[in-house]
Amino acid sequence: MLSDIEISRSTPLRPIADVATAVGLHADEIQTHGQHKAKVSLKALKRLENKKTGKLVVVTAITPTPLGEGKTVTAIGLAQGLFKVGQSVMACIRQPSMGPVFGVKGGAAGGGYSQVAPMEELNLHLTGDIHAVTAAHNLASAAIDARIYHEQRNGYDDFEARSGLTALRIDPQSIVWKRVIDHNDRALRKINVGLNDEGKTINGYEREDGFDISAASELMAVLALASDLQDLRRRIGSIVIGYNLDGKAVTTEDLGVAGAMTVSMREAIEPTMMQTLEGIPTLIHAGPFANIAHGNSSIIADNIATKLADYTVTEGGFGSDMGFEKACNIKAQASGKAPDCAVVVATLRGLKANSGLYNLKPGQPIPDSMFDKDSAALEAGFANLKWHIENVVKYGVPAVVAINRFPQDSEEELAKLKQMVEALPYSVEVAVCEAFAQGGAGAAELASKVVAQCQTPAQFKPLYQMSQTLEEKIMAVTEVGYGAASVTLSDKAKAQLAQFKSLGFDNLAICMAKTPMSISTDGNIKGAPTQFDLPIRELKLCAGAGFIYALCGNVMTMPGLPDKPAFMNLDIDEDGNITGLS
Amino acid sequence: MLSDIEISRSTPLRPIADVATAVGLHADEIQTHGQHKAKVSLKALKRLENKKTGKLVVVTAITPTPLGEGKTVTAIGLAQGLFKVGQSVMACIRQPSMGPVFGVKGGAAGGGYSQVAPMEELNLHLTGDIHAVTAAHNLASAAIDARIYHEQRNGYDDFEARSGLTALRIDPQSIVWKRVIDHNDRALRKINVGLNDEGKTINGYEREDGFDISAASELMAVLALASDLQDLRRRIGSIVIGYNLDGKAVTTEDLGVAGAMTVSMREAIEPTMMQTLEGIPTLIHAGPFANIAHGNSSIIADNIATKLADYTVTEGGFGSDMGFEKACNIKAQASGKAPDCAVVVATLRGLKANSGLYNLKPGQPIPDSMFDKDSAALEAGFANLKWHIENVVKYGVPAVVAINRFPQDSEEELAKLKQMVEALPYSVEVAVCEAFAQGGAGAAELASKVVAQCQTPAQFKPLYQMSQTLEEKIMAVTEVGYGAASVTLSDKAKAQLAQFKSLGFDNLAICMAKTPMSISTDGNIKGAPTQFDLPIRELKLCAGAGFIYALCGNVMTMPGLPDKPAFMNLDIDEDGNITGLS
Repeated sequence: MLSDIEISRSTPLRPIADVATAVGLHADEIQTHGQHKAKVSLKALKRLENKKTGKLVVVTAITPTPLGEGKTVTAIGLAQGLFKVGQSVMACIRQPSMGPVFGVKGGAAGGGYSQVAPMEELNLHLTGDIHAVTAAHNLASAAIDARIYHEQRNGYDDFEARSGLTALRIDPQSIVWKRVIDHNDRALRKINVGLNDEGKTINGYEREDGFDISAASELMAVLALASDLQDLRRRIGSIVIGYNLDGKAVTTEDLGVAGAMTVSMREAIEPTMMQTLEGIPTLIHAGPFANIAHGNSSIIADNIATKLADYTVTEGGFGSDMGFEKACNIKAQASGKAPDCAVVVATLRGLKANSGLYNLKPGQPIPDSMFDKDSAALEAGFANLKWHIENVVKYGVPAVVAINRFPQDSEEELAKLKQMVEALPYSVEVAVCEAFAQGGAGAAELASKVVAQCQTPAQFKPLYQMSQTLEEKIMAVTEVGYGAASVTLSDKAKAQLAQFKSLGFDNLAICMAKTPMSISTDGNIKGAPTQFDLPIRELKLCAGAGFIYALCGNVMTMPGLPDKPAFMNLDIDEDGNITGLS
Repeated sequence: MLSDIEISRSTPLRPIADVATAVGLHADEIQTHGQHKAKVSLKALKRLENKKTGKLVVVTAITPTPLGEGKTVTAIGLAQGLFKVGQSVMACIRQPSMGPVFGVKGGAAGGGYSQVAPMEELNLHLTGDIHAVTAAHNLASAAIDARIYHEQRNGYDDFEARSGLTALRIDPQSIVWKRVIDHNDRALRKINVGLNDEGKTINGYEREDGFDISAASELMAVLALASDLQDLRRRIGSIVIGYNLDGKAVTTEDLGVAGAMTVSMREAIEPTMMQTLEGIPTLIHAGPFANIAHGNSSIIADNIATKLADYTVTEGGFGSDMGFEKACNIKAQASGKAPDCAVVVATLRGLKANSGLYNLKPGQPIPDSMFDKDSAALEAGFANLKWHIENVVKYGVPAVVAINRFPQDSEEELAKLKQMVEALPYSVEVAVCEAFAQGGAGAAELASKVVAQCQTPAQFKPLYQMSQTLEEKIMAVTEVGYGAASVTLSDKAKAQLAQFKSLGFDNLAICMAKTPMSISTDGNIKGAPTQFDLPIRELKLCAGAGFIYALCGNVMTMPGLPDKPAFMNLDIDEDGNITGLS
């Protein structure tokens, strides 16, 4: 079989303007960026306001393993499959960060015959949205340090007299707004800024700071959750960057920088349309983390797609305890649009890995024995899939299991896994999916089952209402959602809970920032853990995004580069084509 | 009169694809980015190779003052004027940095009826080139710190065994490659990176670093000087980021990151076409500083424009001692295309400011007395204009003085200034230019004189040949070029000169990094200083750009934000339009 990039390059694509108009956009609602990308204007949303809303299918997965379950491949393949079975369809995915492209894993366009194309344009710069988010974020950072510097250099009174502004009196120790960059750069995780030459103060106030990767910016979550440009403006202005000397929250609005940040992101708010290898229109928009943020593509993209197509396929990050939980409790409550069906992606090898009987490390070769028949491992690992199916059902969302088939998989084990799913006592469907090798044709059965499940009358219910207290929301996600036996808040987290309530943030959602490698907070506990305690170490306020995230362990928000990074393979050839991108 | 943005918004623009094809580009040589921007493919260069090359007009100016002389307005106005007098014409300008847009001075699109439009698209993100330069630059930074970390964490032998790579043994104290960001952010001027929590080393090797503004990246100069993608690749691979423990230069090629950096910049190498308010096709490309770099738009943009149009108007940064000197000694020697005419922009108030009789500060109101008749100041300041005219003539480039007229200027003083220029003993032309208020019609006389001067047979001569020694090149620029009585190299500079020679860099150009506010290195010395010593403090190697810059004092490569930054005015209105941009 050809490599991903060979397949991508050898597949003829339609002009994106044709793809866009074919799906019902007007010529003046798109701005093409070259032949294969187009920004979609939010004017389209306005025009289509009263049109019927299509079905929203969220692709999720079992607990991830170092092997990769092929969630994006399945999502793109399913979209192509829905088209094959006669449906009008669009896909909505997140924009890949450039950090991993140059770092370890390469691109994130799907794979095989289920890719978004051209993959080099998807993976590199795209239409500049991440750069715009980065620019807006760091503008706020520059504004913070400049304000502190100017307020302090001759005292608050002098500052007020000079500038005509009211001193904000920011406590430099209280700043929670770090800087961001779209690279894997571990040296920037923890830095000191504002250093001066001896005896001078011209570079400002020295303090500890650090860079997160841009996808971890609160602005990325804001972009993904905003409903339109005015809502983006309002959310940006609500961002709390730190506190003043009286403990009062200081916002970007207070800094006078919220308008300029919005200006910087005014084109980023428009999703970018591309196409799959089979010509399915795909919106690429936003790319929030699925731990410290909600891990789903944007509400705006979904809203456009569900007005244009009868079926919209999107995906949530990590397993159903992460991206899907947040798609329901955070995203759907913000958008008012519930998922009509969830697809749970599983693989034979992923389930075996979830049995706890194999010890797998990222980057190491997969042991051959994993592809041998191993009923014990498959049955043990099935507990994890069962958990994720039940988790989806818990929200009242009809489920379809997609078994993403790999070439080494045996018919016998595939049949066994299907039977195990079919034997479950709820109305879950299951299909083997060969979207990688066969494109949409390999996902036709999956597509038909998704269409069938989407006819189930809606009975969506999130685990909490926004009007509940923060404690109630935490309990709903952890005990009801994850099945934790207990929740332990650190003293710090308790104090923060009280602080956030007193500052009026009781109405925000709760976003669980935990490891995706287990349903519990201990990545070593595979399968379907029960009777575990869930410790919450710290809370972080994201008032612009509209949630408070609960940190349950170390979450890495700035990856590093390995010994031999992926960038070493990248180059251009004599004809100017990119080589070494996978 | 309307404000710049009001004029810009009220002027109907043609679809950029029409502008591009009207000037002779084929449809498959452009990639439109929305209605008003298009990337121009380097395929066009290839196709037009054997076509006659048009005239290149470089707009320069007297020594800058805090008032602004209107060099971009004159350049855009002249391009429009050339069209009015029946010529085929294009303009080439640098891409404005976003730092100043959010910081102090606002946008950089020209002004009045001589602007590039839409100005908000020019000033914000454009087609992402600066972001691509920033990304490529910081990828190298991440590569440096990651490599040091991995080589040091278990020693060089272990690194080599693990990775199969040869240890570079970079001396962390020797790193000359800082990080960059497109913001005015003084807190990032000097930072410590790679800090770790106590007892840990997972974030790498702690060292002092800092951020420059992206326009100060060597990559920006590389982009502006590259002739095509392969030359870009070669130049990027030649960049010296520091030295190993034996004092040998370490390049981005050694780090294995040069290919990936080129990949990141592969769209940035294509100039962006926009148009002036009167529809003149304008290429926007690169934006190197005019002190630590050569301060001119790109060779690629010039090469495309001079093949498409009979006249191409471009501009060099600051006065003729800066951008124009470098246009001749660095850019023209790299491109092989000499300027056919230089336009020296002067204003009555600028000359008075150059008399030394006024004490002006940036941001303070202009004293009314400057607009009164003041023969003494005008005559004293004229020495500066005379110097710049003579400087242009020194390179064998025909000169035209453009007196950029302001509303308060008196006819009497304008006439007097014209007479003073006309009385000079060489064939310089002079015209009053009203491009700001009248667009191209206000620059028609200037345009006619430029056309006339461009008929002068070519007699261009740079001040040095690349084959000369570094010392000879320094002497040529300082003593012959600036008229310095002497040059004093610091001990450090002397040692660096010997080092760079021993490393084989004697063949590079010399780029003077001095204040633009005086022809000397003392910004307080106005007019046309003579008998001054020119001290060189330090040399910096830019092997990718192809020059060594000589630092003659403090050059600020990371601006700060003022008390009340420009971003405070920026916002979106109810209709999503940008407000407060000027």
